[in-house]
Amino acid sequence: MEQEDTIDFNLRKTWNKIQKMYNHTASEYEGNMSLAMIVLNIDMHEGTLSTQIGPLMGMEATSISRSLNRLEKMGIIERKNDKDDKRKVKIHLTNLGLERREIAKKTVLNFNDSIISHFTKDEMKIFFEILHKINNVLDMKKI
Amino acid sequence: MEQEDTIDFNLRKTWNKIQKMYNHTASEYEGNMSLAMIVLNIDMHEGTLSTQIGPLMGMEATSISRSLNRLEKMGIIERKNDKDDKRKVKIHLTNLGLERREIAKKTVLNFNDSIISHFTKDEMKIFFEILHKINNVLDMKKI
Repeated sequence: MEQEDTIDFNLRKTWNKIQKMYNHTASEYEGNMSLAMIVLNIDMHEGTLSTQIGPLMGMEATSISRSLNRLEKMGIIERKNDKDDKRKVKIHLTNLGLERREIAKKTVLNFNDSIISHFTKDEMKIFFEILHKINNVLDMKKI
Repeated sequence: MEQEDTIDFNLRKTWNKIQKMYNHTASEYEGNMSLAMIVLNIDMHEGTLSTQIGPLMGMEATSISRSLNRLEKMGIIERKNDKDDKRKVKIHLTNLGLERREIAKKTVLNFNDSIISHFTKDEMKIFFEILHKINNVLDMKKI
């Protein structure tokens, strides 16, 4: 098996290209892909507990906290105490944040639509099944 | 479309898990996935020009150079002048490097075999076709 035929080589290559494309779009708004992903994970109406964002995105708490500071300085989010439990901090999008979330969402949807339009439903189903199976195999290895 | 249904969310999730698994194995040899990938890209017999490794892996020259220094200190590679063109530097694997390359290769093959065994040839064909199509769409966007 040559490197070019492996699953991991091809996944890495494709994922790197997607990342580059998203970073390119995000850079037009002085952001990056990772900041845009956080914005997409904040509930537009209710806000989201700061402790929930890490698990949602599979990111470390320290790295999330740095990103939230940056988003706050950019005027995209606000930190507020949760009204039900004052000890907890909820992240809310500002008006600017809501605008930016809309742009991020459109970018993601446009990209996905432009790919999906090339394939049948069955083909996409197989694609996602293989990704899920890879996840399951890796989870079984318990690493 | 929910985030969990997008191509990019699922690719990122799967790629992160693969990376974690490879880093786990590489850490048993005081390495990481990126160092292991470099070792896999060095020709066992002829060596490989240092300037060729970046393009092979899609990595920046400065980052490659740092990694090569680390591999040299670990006794895994040697830098030698190219016998045809003395101005050029060729990277050769040491005996330890050849051993480590074998381990890296087995790790990659085992992982790929364990995934591929769950699917038919046609299913894998569709999987790779979709990855290639995503690359093509991204290349056409010229980013």
